[in-house]
Parts: sequence; structure tokens; C-alpha cells
Amino acid sequence: MTAFEALDHLLGSRFTTTLAARQQNAHNEAHYDEALPDAVAFPETTEEVAQILRTCAEAGVPVTPFGTGTSLEGQHLAVNGGVSLDFSRMNRILSVNDADMNVVVQPGVTRKQLNEELRATGLFFPIDPGADASLGGMAATRASGTTAVRYGTMRENVLALEAVMADGSVIRTGTAAKKSSAGYDLTHLLVGSEGTLGLITELTLKMHGQPEAVAAATCRFETVEDAVDCVILTIQSGIPMARIELVDEMMVRGFNLHAGTGMPEKPHLFLEFHGAPQAVAEQVATFRELAADAGAEGWQEAATTEERTALWSLRHGALPAIGALDPGAGKRTYSTDVCVPISRLAEAVAVAKEEARARGLICTIVGHVGDGNFHCGVRFDPADRAQLDAVLAFSGALAEAALRLGGTVTGEHGIGLGKQKYMDAEHGAALDWMRRVKTAFDPQGILNPGKLIPPES
Amino acid sequence: MTAFEALDHLLGSRFTTTLAARQQNAHNEAHYDEALPDAVAFPETTEEVAQILRTCAEAGVPVTPFGTGTSLEGQHLAVNGGVSLDFSRMNRILSVNDADMNVVVQPGVTRKQLNEELRATGLFFPIDPGADASLGGMAATRASGTTAVRYGTMRENVLALEAVMADGSVIRTGTAAKKSSAGYDLTHLLVGSEGTLGLITELTLKMHGQPEAVAAATCRFETVEDAVDCVILTIQSGIPMARIELVDEMMVRGFNLHAGTGMPEKPHLFLEFHGAPQAVAEQVATFRELAADAGAEGWQEAATTEERTALWSLRHGALPAIGALDPGAGKRTYSTDVCVPISRLAEAVAVAKEEARARGLICTIVGHVGDGNFHCGVRFDPADRAQLDAVLAFSGALAEAALRLGGTVTGEHGIGLGKQKYMDAEHGAALDWMRRVKTAFDPQGILNPGKLIPPES
Repeated sequence: MTAFEALDHLLGSRFTTTLAARQQNAHNEAHYDEALPDAVAFPETTEEVAQILRTCAEAGVPVTPFGTGTSLEGQHLAVNGGVSLDFSRMNRILSVNDADMNVVVQPGVTRKQLNEELRATGLFFPIDPGADASLGGMAATRASGTTAVRYGTMRENVLALEAVMADGSVIRTGTAAKKSSAGYDLTHLLVGSEGTLGLITELTLKMHGQPEAVAAATCRFETVEDAVDCVILTIQSGIPMARIELVDEMMVRGFNLHAGTGMPEKPHLFLEFHGAPQAVAEQVATFRELAADAGAEGWQEAATTEERTALWSLRHGALPAIGALDPGAGKRTYSTDVCVPISRLAEAVAVAKEEARARGLICTIVGHVGDGNFHCGVRFDPADRAQLDAVLAFSGALAEAALRLGGTVTGEHGIGLGKQKYMDAEHGAALDWMRRVKTAFDPQGILNPGKLIPPES
Repeated sequence: MTAFEALDHLLGSRFTTTLAARQQNAHNEAHYDEALPDAVAFPETTEEVAQILRTCAEAGVPVTPFGTGTSLEGQHLAVNGGVSLDFSRMNRILSVNDADMNVVVQPGVTRKQLNEELRATGLFFPIDPGADASLGGMAATRASGTTAVRYGTMRENVLALEAVMADGSVIRTGTAAKKSSAGYDLTHLLVGSEGTLGLITELTLKMHGQPEAVAAATCRFETVEDAVDCVILTIQSGIPMARIELVDEMMVRGFNLHAGTGMPEKPHLFLEFHGAPQAVAEQVATFRELAADAGAEGWQEAATTEERTALWSLRHGALPAIGALDPGAGKRTYSTDVCVPISRLAEAVAVAKEEARARGLICTIVGHVGDGNFHCGVRFDPADRAQLDAVLAFSGALAEAALRLGGTVTGEHGIGLGKQKYMDAEHGAALDWMRRVKTAFDPQGILNPGKLIPPES
């Protein structure tokens, strides 16, 4: 019996080699070529995942995990063929533990599905990368987003994992206790490993109390430097910002074109404050003082829940709004991110603007600037190879600048296919020790091959 | 040339085989037998550490890192002989980066030394395990303490590391950026690895702003269960406690005997609130309401900085105060810790009390209860083997209970020598994957042999 026959026997109609199913998981939102798996498997239990892995390990068939396909560096693409292991049917919330403020979920549960379920409990899951990604995928790529400045990234919010390893063995890492000093931190080794060390089949996640009071607002600055200076002062002053997002003047123009917002085309900060009522009022007052000193104008508070939702919908609609800056059939937006120590943020943003300008690229900057993390959205025409090359050269210049400024080539999008070329520059000798982990955990190299670890030169 | 001749040549008087020096690093605060290294090395630079490792790797000589010798599970004891690598001369603060709220330090810097240096900056390093431990040792054991409920443990506060690996290669993990999705998280793999995977030679640590306002107080409850209920309510309500420490009635008796405090011998909570002035006032008011509902009495606020210092000095003086409960030449205190999901905390504390009572042991309970973590301090006479056996059986029963309640056998003391026997029960199949990491990183087994990973049965 071949491996595929065995999987067909195991999963029945939940194992398929039809072109339609393979194409569905071959797509990506970035600039990577489509990559067709040879088959797609839809397991429903950890034991099925373990059996798939045992079968594939025996036959040397690659296995590429698939959540919602929203990763931005091609992490979910089966570039070496084999099985696309689609977690969409492992989408059950297994327990909500109010008293301990955690939940246990299967990896295919999406963040919006979870928050829907939590609504009545007074708890919420804050991590918000924009897309309605699966929680397994978010853990595997160490996702974060607008609220990480206050609540941390997936790194800080995964308490425990169950994972299936390359040989089909099932392990549990961590516990529901808030801390532990018992042995190696395999949880954090798996978080961010992009499915190359093991496949996450269950997550215990920290929840947070829905804040008693919330305030949201926007304000604008003459220059990005002024806005960034305001951010630095805010973080240093210890205001526990829930969100502090930079939107540059080009992005505002996109919003105006796309959503008719009529905002002054200047750099803006989008802000949110969480806490007890008096604490929030105090945070807002302190922020406004700092912001005024940094030259802020046009303070606009979102007074109602509806206005607040509208504010963040606008921010999360950045991708279509970037499209409005340079419409045209077939054109796409390349999205990249870097993260630097906050003191170097203004420099990094200046590099991005200059490198885009020098290449004649249309580039917006939006960012989780409280963490020193920002995104560049650059328009390109995939049919124009020279333009794509210019975009990739831009991305390379930005990555190099991030390293020169003491930062990292990616704050949240991950390595996947696109950023392997910077792994040596970022990690130096440490890359050899990452390779040792990979070899120890997946000696055959069947787990998401072609991702994260660059080929040896 | 033998390895020791080579090290003597390299380090001169900073390499010694004298009995006095060896004995100094053979001591421990717990119940473990003294363990003499064959030699002690005092490197001053990373390059010297690398040369020591290269020399020892070639000769197969064990290397055991030594910070201040305050670990509680024998992590620093050279149980297989070889070289005790003493970091006390690598104690320089390399940079204080106010704008980025981080510092770069050598591993021998102690937490008090760091906070002394930071005093003028408005920043502080919150992690406070009680002892004035070295920061390298604190990272290696994933230390935490009274403020972890607010500021996290070493896991959350180490941004980047430099480490020397078993073959003498020097790696850097992480960057000064606040987050990254670039590759495997070797930083968190090294944090908590107790010197068995690599030796930390430099740390980049997160700093926090000194709070604008601080309030501290104590209150008491009729029963430990009432106190714990109050803690659970407090955490669930989202009050961002800076410290919330349980002190049981036996511990209070110890304080009264040792320090003449004259406190009612009931379970107490010791509390601290940090924030902006109105936020702190609001936190205190909200806490007092919750506490009153849970039956709190005797609210005592520490009004001045001096009173606050006295309050925490009392708490940190637990060890000598336990001694006052059962004085006698040669008697010692065995200290163990477990951590459970907070909803199971009252049960875990009840098990501890019952298991101690059943064995006729004098046992105090103090704990970082906001995290579900607590310590038992048990008196014993090392000359009385039966009593030590009873203490160890008590510790085993407590560890088993922690696992049964969904927790971990150690929240902050670590595995070292004493808790290896629970690694299989806590980690199951995951322990094999920890062994894979160890074998991949230290194939000869020269890094802190005999610690953390139990021998294969």
C-alpha cells in the first residue's frame, strides 16, 4: 500500500488529490508562485494527525500544515509537494476556563471565532494580526498585531501546546499554570517554528479581562518623525497603551480614496486606552499632554462603541486602501515588516521612505510603533518582473537597515520562503544551532520543507 | 599539556585548584551534599569562556556554571567534578539604554547591583527572587519572585542573550527589538536550561519605568481559603497587582518570634500597587471592596517609603523567621515550590498543609499567589535521616498534587538535582524531545552534567 492509499484508507473523503482541493491550498496573499500539494488531508483528531505523520515519515512524504492560508511569507505553501495538512476541521473550542483565564482550542479555531465564543464571559483574546487567522497558524508564525504593545504577542499568550512530531509521536509542552521552571521551554521552541519542528494540534491560550473602560482616538502630526517622537515619549512615560498605531500620510491618502474619509493627509496615530475608568481618563490626559508637546493636532475621540469599531475597521482595511493608491487590473500589494529598538524607529521609517522613493515605488507605512514594528505596503504589477525586482530590492534594503539599527528582519510576518536570505545576517553562528534543532527534531526533513531554515551554502 | 595546564596558562591566578576555592563553590542553601569541583575558573571575557569550553570539550572535562550559589535545587553544584566556571568577575553593566528601556549586562551582575546603577534613570529591573542572585543565574533558572504577577518572570524579561556553547562557539540570540518572528526562539530555549545547553555570557534585559505612585498594604483573613479566594477574585477582576503575597498563620508566627512584629497569627496578604496616582487610588479602592467581601480584616497601609521597605524586608526575611519556629543547632529549612492554575490554588495549599501535618513537620506557606505559585518552608535536622526522608516524601506528595491539579512541579526553583524524579511525570513523551535538544547541543554531556535531564531508566 502506498502512503496515499494508506491515507485514503484512514481519512476517506477527508483525503483528496483533486486539483480543485490542491489549488485551494496553493494560493497565497503575497507574491509567491502558487505551489500545488500532491494531496490535501483534513484530519479531525490529534490521533489522525499522528497517523498521517507516521505514514508520511515512513514514505518520506513532505507534510505542510495549513490554517487559513493568510500567512504573508508563504509559510503554508507546499513547495516540495506532498501533503497539505489542512486544520480547518480541527476547529473546536475544547474548554473555556474563566477562573483561570485560559482556553483550550484546536488549531483550526480562528481568533474571531474564539472571541465570539468568549463574548459572554467578560474575557477576550487580544492578539489581532488583522486577518481572521487560525490560532494554530498564529502560534506557528509567532503572530502579533495592534494590541501586542499591551498584551504581548503569541509568544506571551501561549501557555501550553500539544504537538505531533515528525515521527508521529504526540507531546504536551507547558501546563495551565502561569509559570514553570521545569525543564526546557519546548512551548516557545514550537511557537514561531512555522511547522518545521512539529505540528500544533491543541493550544492553551491566556485570556484577558475585557477592560472596564475603553477610549480610542486619533491625532495627526506634521511629520512622521514628530509622530514617532510622541510614541517614544509615550512608551517611556509608562502609559500602558492598548494600541498605538502609526499611519503615514500616504496611507491616509489611501483611506481617503478608498473610504472617503476626508482626513488631512498627514501622519496620524490611532490610539486605544484600556483600564478602569479613572485610570483610562488619566492615561488619556497624560497622553494628550505629551502629544501636544510633540506637535499633535486634530484630536478626535471615538465617543461610542460604533465610532471605535469604525476607527479600527478603517485601520484594518489598509490593504484594499493601499490598492486605491494605484489601481489597475492584476496589480498587487507587497507587504513586508521589520522591527527595531524604539529609539531607532524614526531612522528605520526614514530609510523605508527613502528606499521606496529612490525606486519610484508607491509605499505606505503603517505600524505597531509602540513595539518598534512597522509594515510597508508597496504596489507592484506581477507581470512586470523589473518592478517586482525593485520591490524585493527595497525589502532587502529595509531588512539590512533593520539589522544595522539593532533590530530584526521581521517583527511578525515570519521567515517562510521570503526572508531566509537574511537568516545568516541576523543570526550568524546561532543559525547553526537552529539547524541542530531542526535535524534533531526532523532528521528526514519532512516537516514543512523549504521554510525558515535556508539551504546550506 | 593537560586541560588544567592549558587553563592555568590561559587564566593564571584566575584558575585555581586550591581546596578553599573549590569548597567555596561546593556549598548550597538546600539539603544537597557538598560537591567539590576539581578546579575553579574565573573568566573575565566571553573569549575566555569560549577558550575554557574548547579546552574542556577536547578533554571531556565537565563545566558547571556558578553565579552566586543561591540556587535552591543544587543547580550550581559540580556533582561530576570538573571545572566550576565562576562568573563573579564578569560583573560589568555594559550599557543602559534609557530610550529603549533595556540594559546589557554580563552574567555576574546581581539584581541589586543593577538596580543600584539604574536608580538615577527612572527605570528599574523588577524581578526579585529574594536572594541577591546573579542575572545570568536568574536567566539560567528562569527565576521570578514577588513581582512576576505584574512584570513577568525572566522568561518575559530577557530580550537577547550571548552564550558560549559546548564546543566553544559563541552565539547571539534575539535582538534589542521588542519582538521578532525570525526563526527559532533560542533565547527561550536557553532561559531555564540551567547551564545544560550553553553558558550565558551576556544578557539584554527589559527595564520598566519606576512607577509614579506606589501603595503597599497588608490585610488578614480567617482562613487560607478565604485569602486565596480574595486573590482569585482580584486577578479575575483585572486589578494589575504589582505584588500579592500569601503568608500563612505559621509564617506570621515565625515573623512574630523572629522580628517581634506582634501580628495576629492569621493568614495575611501582603500587597503592592503600582501606577499613575489616580490609577493606584482606584486599584486600592477596588481591591478593598473585593477583600472586604472575602472577609478581610485589619487593613494596614504602609504610608511611607520606610514603612513599605520594612514590609517587604519582613517578607524577604522569611527564611530566618522560619528558623525561629524550630531553633536548634544544625537545623535547616527545606524550601520547595509548586505552581498550579489559580482556580486550584486553595486545593494545592490544603494538600500542603495536610501532608505536612500528617508527617509531623513544621511547615510555613508563603507564595506568589497571584501566579498560583507558593513555597513551603519545612524545618529538618540533617543529622536525622528519617526526618529528611519525611521532608522529601512531603515534597513528592506536593509535586504529585501539583501535577494532578494541572500545574507544574516547580514554578521558580527549577529542576537541578532534586526534581529530576518528576520530569517524566510532568512531561511524558516531551521529555524525549528535551533529550534530543540536549544531545544535539552537548553531545559529550560536559555542560552541567547531572542536572535537569534525568538519567535514562
